[in-house]
Amino acid sequence: MVGQFLLVTFLGTGGSMPTTGRSLPSVVLRYDAELLMFDCGEGTQRQMTLARIGLTRKMKIFITHMHGDHVLGLPGVIQSMSLLGRENRLDIYGPYGIRAFLECVRETLAFGLNFPLEIHELRSGGKIDETHYQIHATNANHIVPALSYSFVEKPRPGKFRLAVARRLNIPEGPLRKRLQSGDQITIDGRRIRPQEVVGPSRPGLKITYTGDTRPSKALCVFSEKSNLLIHDACFDSSLKDKAEVDGHSTAAQAAQVAKKARVEKLALTHISARYRDPKILLAEAKNIFKASFVAEDLMAIEL
Amino acid sequence: MVGQFLLVTFLGTGGSMPTTGRSLPSVVLRYDAELLMFDCGEGTQRQMTLARIGLTRKMKIFITHMHGDHVLGLPGVIQSMSLLGRENRLDIYGPYGIRAFLECVRETLAFGLNFPLEIHELRSGGKIDETHYQIHATNANHIVPALSYSFVEKPRPGKFRLAVARRLNIPEGPLRKRLQSGDQITIDGRRIRPQEVVGPSRPGLKITYTGDTRPSKALCVFSEKSNLLIHDACFDSSLKDKAEVDGHSTAAQAAQVAKKARVEKLALTHISARYRDPKILLAEAKNIFKASFVAEDLMAIEL
Repeated sequence: MVGQFLLVTFLGTGGSMPTTGRSLPSVVLRYDAELLMFDCGEGTQRQMTLARIGLTRKMKIFITHMHGDHVLGLPGVIQSMSLLGRENRLDIYGPYGIRAFLECVRETLAFGLNFPLEIHELRSGGKIDETHYQIHATNANHIVPALSYSFVEKPRPGKFRLAVARRLNIPEGPLRKRLQSGDQITIDGRRIRPQEVVGPSRPGLKITYTGDTRPSKALCVFSEKSNLLIHDACFDSSLKDKAEVDGHSTAAQAAQVAKKARVEKLALTHISARYRDPKILLAEAKNIFKASFVAEDLMAIEL
Repeated sequence: MVGQFLLVTFLGTGGSMPTTGRSLPSVVLRYDAELLMFDCGEGTQRQMTLARIGLTRKMKIFITHMHGDHVLGLPGVIQSMSLLGRENRLDIYGPYGIRAFLECVRETLAFGLNFPLEIHELRSGGKIDETHYQIHATNANHIVPALSYSFVEKPRPGKFRLAVARRLNIPEGPLRKRLQSGDQITIDGRRIRPQEVVGPSRPGLKITYTGDTRPSKALCVFSEKSNLLIHDACFDSSLKDKAEVDGHSTAAQAAQVAKKARVEKLALTHISARYRDPKILLAEAKNIFKASFVAEDLMAIEL
C-alpha cells in the first residue's frame, strides 16, 4: 500500500447560528475510500450535496458535544441515507447523550432504516483503531461535556523505488506487493530485502478537530505536531471575556495553541455570525502563528 | 383598517431530500406584522436569513405532518430565536406527535428558552381564529396522518373614499376610523352612515397549503376559490403509480385540483430531487390549469 489520499472538506464553518455565508459546523475527511465526519450541524446533508460528497459511502461520524448546532443535521443525514438505499453500516461516535437524542428523534419521527446504525458513546481517552489510522478522543473545555478528536494515521510505507525494482528485474505484481508489505522475496535464487527497494516508512498524517473549546493546555498536548489543527476561533480578542464565559476561544488563543503544539497549519473555524468579514480573526491569528487560515464553507484541502 | 400586506415567500421547495437548488419544505406568509410559517424542514433558519426574514417577529408555525423533511428545521429555529433574545411567544401547531418530538429534542439537547413556546396538537376541522384571519386545518391524504392548512382572511373593509370624506368635511382622525369600522358618526348634527364614505367590504384573501398529499376531493372543497393554492407536485405523470404509493401528487393531479377548486393561482412545490429542470412538471400542469407555476426557493409573491 502506498500513502492514502486525504482530503479535508469544510462543510460548515459558522457557529451557533448559520449565516448567508456559513452553515453550521461539520468537517469531512475523505481518507481513501472512507469518509470521517466531525460534527453534523443542521444543513450538513445539503452541504454534502453542494460538495458532491455521497451519502452511501463508507462513513463514520464523530460528534463533539450535544449542542444543537453540532448535531441537528444527523437525523436528516441518516434519513437521506435510507432514502438513497444505503446498505453500508454507519458508525456514530459522540459523548454521553448522543444515543438518547438519536433514539428519541427516530421514535417520534418514526423513521425506518435500511442499514445498520451503530451508536457509540465515548469518553476522554477513547480510541478507535482501524487498519491504517486511529481516532483519539479527549476532553475539550466547553460549557457542557465535549470531546476533541484527532485522526492519527499509522506510519505510511516508504516510497517504492521503481528504478531499483526494474534494475533488480522484479516483475510488476505480487512480488512487488510483498516487498511493499515488508516481506523479503527471492528471485532466481537471489534474496531481496524490502529495504533495498522500499524507502524508510514515513510518519502518518495527524489532524485534530477541537470542536467548541476554551484554549487548553491538554489540547496543546493532544494536538501536538498535527499537520492540521482545526480550532474553535469564535471571537476576536476584544471579546476574550465573552469567549471564556461561552466556552469558546479567540483567534489569538487558537493561534497560541497551534504555536505551542507545533502544528503545521491552523484552520480557524466556528466563526461567530458577527464577522461578515473574518479578516480581524485572521490578522490576530497570523500575528502569533503564521500558517493560519480562516476555514470557509466548501473549502477543500488535500494533505 | 385598510387591507393588510400579504407576502408569500417560499423558503424550501424540495421534498424528502435537499438538492443544490432546493431546500426542504417551508413557506412563510407575512401578513402585516406577523409571520405564518407552514412546515419547517431542515435548513429553514438559514433560508430565513437568506430571505431576510427575522426570527424575533410575531410568528406562528404550522406543521403538516411528522416526517423529518417537514419538521427537522424546528429545533434550530427555536434555538436561534432564543440566542437572538426573542421574547415574543411562539405558537407551533401540528398533528399529534409534534409535542413529543419537540419535548424529546429539548430534553436530550438540554436547550433553554427565553420566550414562551406553546405547542398545539390539531385535528381535521381545527381552526385558529384571529382578529383579521382564520387558519383552517383538514386531513390531507398522505401515508401518515397529515394536515393541510388554509389561511382565510376575514372580509376586508371597503375602500375609504377620500374625496367624499373631504366633501362631507369629515376631519382626519378618529371620526374617519369609526366610519371605517362600520359605525355611523354625527358632524354638526348631521348623521353620516359608513356606506356613504366606505365602499362595500371586499372578500379576504385565501391561501391553501396542502403539504404532502395525494390528490383529494376533500382538498378540492377545502381549497375552493383560494387566491393561491400551494400543492404537492412531487412527480410528473409518468410516475403516477409511485406518487400513489408514496402519498404524493403529480403536477397534472395538482392542476386538476386547482381547476376543480377554481383557485386563482397554483404553485407547484415539494419538487422531487430527480428534476433538475422542472419544466416537465410545469408543462403538464399548465396544460390543465394555465395559472400554474413552479415554486422556487426564495421566490416571493405579493398578494
